[in-house]
Amino acid sequence: SSATDTIRATLFPGDGIGPEIAESVKQVFRTAEVPIEWEEHYVGDQVDPRTQSFLTWESLESVRRNRVGLKGPMATPIGKGHRSLNLTLRKELNLYANVRPCYSLPGYKTRYDDVNLITIRENTEGEYSGLEHQVVRGVVESLKIITRQASLRVAEYAFHYAKTHGRERVSAIHKANIMQKTDGLFLKCCREVAEKYPEITYEEVVIDNCCMMLVKNPALFDVLVMPNLYGDIISDLCAGLIGGLGLTPSCNIGEGGIALAEAVHGSAPDIAGKVMKNMANPTALLLSSVSMLRHLNLHDKADRIQEAILSTIAEGKYRTADLGGTSTTTDFTKAICDHL
Amino acid sequence: SSATDTIRATLFPGDGIGPEIAESVKQVFRTAEVPIEWEEHYVGDQVDPRTQSFLTWESLESVRRNRVGLKGPMATPIGKGHRSLNLTLRKELNLYANVRPCYSLPGYKTRYDDVNLITIRENTEGEYSGLEHQVVRGVVESLKIITRQASLRVAEYAFHYAKTHGRERVSAIHKANIMQKTDGLFLKCCREVAEKYPEITYEEVVIDNCCMMLVKNPALFDVLVMPNLYGDIISDLCAGLIGGLGLTPSCNIGEGGIALAEAVHGSAPDIAGKVMKNMANPTALLLSSVSMLRHLNLHDKADRIQEAILSTIAEGKYRTADLGGTSTTTDFTKAICDHL
Ligand SMILES: CC(C)[C@H](C(=O)O)[C@@H](O)C(=O)O
Ligand SMILES: CC(C)[C@H](C(=O)O)[C@@H](O)C(=O)O
Repeated sequence: SSATDTIRATLFPGDGIGPEIAESVKQVFRTAEVPIEWEEHYVGDQVDPRTQSFLTWESLESVRRNRVGLKGPMATPIGKGHRSLNLTLRKELNLYANVRPCYSLPGYKTRYDDVNLITIRENTEGEYSGLEHQVVRGVVESLKIITRQASLRVAEYAFHYAKTHGRERVSAIHKANIMQKTDGLFLKCCREVAEKYPEITYEEVVIDNCCMMLVKNPALFDVLVMPNLYGDIISDLCAGLIGGLGLTPSCNIGEGGIALAEAVHGSAPDIAGKVMKNMANPTALLLSSVSMLRHLNLHDKADRIQEAILSTIAEGKYRTADLGGTSTTTDFTKAICDHL
Repeated sequence: SSATDTIRATLFPGDGIGPEIAESVKQVFRTAEVPIEWEEHYVGDQVDPRTQSFLTWESLESVRRNRVGLKGPMATPIGKGHRSLNLTLRKELNLYANVRPCYSLPGYKTRYDDVNLITIRENTEGEYSGLEHQVVRGVVESLKIITRQASLRVAEYAFHYAKTHGRERVSAIHKANIMQKTDGLFLKCCREVAEKYPEITYEEVVIDNCCMMLVKNPALFDVLVMPNLYGDIISDLCAGLIGGLGLTPSCNIGEGGIALAEAVHGSAPDIAGKVMKNMANPTALLLSSVSMLRHLNLHDKADRIQEAILSTIAEGKYRTADLGGTSTTTDFTKAICDHL
């Protein structure tokens, strides 16, 4: 493919095991001849005053320019005077929806073999407003903010996603029986959008009941859309159903068509680097890179890579330690490349 | 036993299937010769101005006087100008802790056979403050309130419960990485109480991670204590692990030693009364009545009744429709009585 076909994408390898699993993605993309050129950015070692965090201004500019990126785990350094890396990315890039496809992996046994759902989380407001204060000694309050704009935006994304991905149902998850105004507004916005998509079934499920139904029978759900905190909780619950965060891809969608795919697991400093290196499971980042390719409409490449990852896991010969195997990151990656 | 040994307890049969399952409890208690005399109170058919709800003032007075009660499902009538029945009870009786033992039922198969945990939910504040308002058009906020007093009170209850019930660990569930002040205060209170119980292991688990761990391996948990909304979510999730709300007991603890045991499932109007009567599963209310007996230190009676319920379910000959059987409520109840 000619140079003009090449797409530039930002890569944040992240910390801990991040660089090892990012290397795995780079190798798989090379093997599959994905026409992507990475612009790599590492987390800085001092606070950048323009971002008020350890993220460099250049790295944010890179995502803004490329409109597409991939991000490994980032542990926020401890200390005062700076913002969480993950929250800074969401805020600065206005990443309003976190999308997580969650399906049972063929051949990797958990208690569930019938999971096939998508969680779509509002990613900018709700309980994450950061507005908290002490009212009097011993009494503190925090504000949950729900806006019409952000609720419509994420609802629109969810219904559009359902329609374009052959999904049949959108469930809005809420606690409007208690938070009638905030979650009530969220539901009102979902209903408005639902009317524009008569071909998609719309339902509303209270979060406590939703969690009970998910653990009893996850096949009841298709696409779930919800405010920030419920999305945080339910997307991790769903990841647990299929084996954990090491296996689940995630993609953040921002205003203006930005997509930042992301492995949402931790940076596992204990198995990164010197003594225990080359042990990490790159699956979540690899599947996130597949989400990124789909966002770019590179579906052929996405299908091939996804198929190679799933087959390698299904065969079971090469699995990393977290899945009960003994393969190194590089062996597992090589097995995927051999499948391509 | 002589009349002076008799304990008076309030009984709210509730609506829908409530009276049918309450009848089951009364029959089991008679058969087991439990020295309890019920004071029955039904939900009124008009708003009582003294309670601002359909609950009668007399019924609340009855619980306050007896300090112990059992409650079936209550559906709040739709309409304005009155408060939710469940929330009114919590508020008026200051029911500060909701305690739910959750264990796999021998012989009743779900995807999990290793659940044995207790959820303890703060029941009076947090996201349930009822304080919400519109800031400007399209922007609403709700207040989450955490107080030192309520947090210490529920933490104290949880550690005391762990100690007196042979439990080894208390996990405080939170999202203090985001809500540093509110959930931070909750954790601070838990830590203070933990110091008084050096024999109990104390840990803190972020709610998203907790839900993932619960669905992967619930055996990791023992006693969980948490703010109101997390408790609402996690207690239902845990109920799902063992088969649903129809099987899980619950008990509310109030200031001054009040205990109101409660079946937390719905009133299932579709299978109550005329056409489809006598189909409801009374297990949750029966096991809740066992919790009530334990609270009264009637452990012999509690053990015998619990044993009879669990054996009947384990044998599998008499099961109600929700558990895949064909027994009526009265058949199932009779089978339990035969066990006694
Ligand atoms: C680390 C934490 C702040 C973050 C969140 O709560 O959003 C994480 O749980 C996630 O889901 O990305
Ligand atoms: C019905 C609802 C208001 C209630 C709650 O949220 O507390 C219920 O879910 C419960 O757990 O008792």
